[in-house]
Order: sequence, then C-alpha cells, then structure tokens
Amino acid sequence: MSVAKLTEAERDDALIQLDGWTLGRDGAAIERTFKFANFVEAFGFMTSVAILAEKQDHHPEWFNVYNRVEITLTTHDADGLSQRDIKLAKAIEELL
Amino acid sequence: MSVAKLTEAERDDALIQLDGWTLGRDGAAIERTFKFANFVEAFGFMTSVAILAEKQDHHPEWFNVYNRVEITLTTHDADGLSQRDIKLAKAIEELL
Repeated sequence: MSVAKLTEAERDDALIQLDGWTLGRDGAAIERTFKFANFVEAFGFMTSVAILAEKQDHHPEWFNVYNRVEITLTTHDADGLSQRDIKLAKAIEELL
Repeated sequence: MSVAKLTEAERDDALIQLDGWTLGRDGAAIERTFKFANFVEAFGFMTSVAILAEKQDHHPEWFNVYNRVEITLTTHDADGLSQRDIKLAKAIEELL
C-alpha cells in the first residue's frame, strides 16, 4: 500500500508541533533519543511504544542500551516521512 | 565493579558452545540477529530478554525493526567480553 510522502512544507509544519524530534536520513526520517532512570523504566517505555505502534500498524526502528532509547521513524512505503510517522511521534510524546 | 575479561582461549571456547553468535567490535562483543514472523513476536522475545537481562543485571545493546532483533553483548566494565555475556547469550538461546 502506497502512502503519501509529506511535502517539505508539511514536514516542517509537523516538526514545529513535535517536541525534540530532529530530521535524519536526509529528511527521510525523524529521530529522538529518550533517557530514563534505569533499564526497567526504559524498557517499560518501549513496551508502551510497542503497543501503540502495533495498534497504528506502524513500527519504529529503535535502539536501546540500558537507560537510553533512540527512536527513528520513517515510512518505507512513502520512501520518506508520512503522516504515520507524525501520528506515532505524537502518541509517543503523550506517553511521557 | 571490575569484571574479568575473557582470555582469547576462553572466548573461543565459549563461542563454540553458543549457537549463531559471532564476534564483533574487534572481539570485544558477540552479536546475533534474530528474525520472527512479525513485530508482536519480535517484541515478545525482547520482553523475555529484558526480564532475563534485568535479573542478571547485565543488559544488551539492541536494535529492532519490525520482525528483526539485533543483539550485541559486551561488558563495559571488562572493556570486552566477560562471562556475563556468555551467561546472558545462553539464557537468550534457551528462550527460543
């Protein structure tokens, strides 16, 4: 299923509404690093994100080491950013 | 707390006992990639690993995208591999 790629204007508008996310991969992804008190808190956060992601049928690329979680959102079907990434990023923010 | 770094002989001996793990980071880490049917299965596996890791007080560096989980084990306190990595790798294998 093809998904509409955000225009640069849409992308910039969306980034303004998000907190702490930066563009990565030449504008094809948004990225944010989260830090927690310890591994249990970091993995608890990941578990919440995993459930959100599965509900939205849109999954992160992510890395964890101890209390740090690095999340990258991109839409392969759009070959860049789509509203799916923005929606998931907003839902992740609401967890915090 | 300092942890004993494995000698090369200990490391090679341990690797023979493990299934599918390869040396990374110039011998300072072991790595393995796991593939699952979908995200839910991949994250279910990660959840089990997280609990094991917390129990062993030794945590992975890991990356996930959809059904793929890449795990790297290393012991920062040993500046390389230690028995902690081997113990966690074996426990992860027993999950499968």
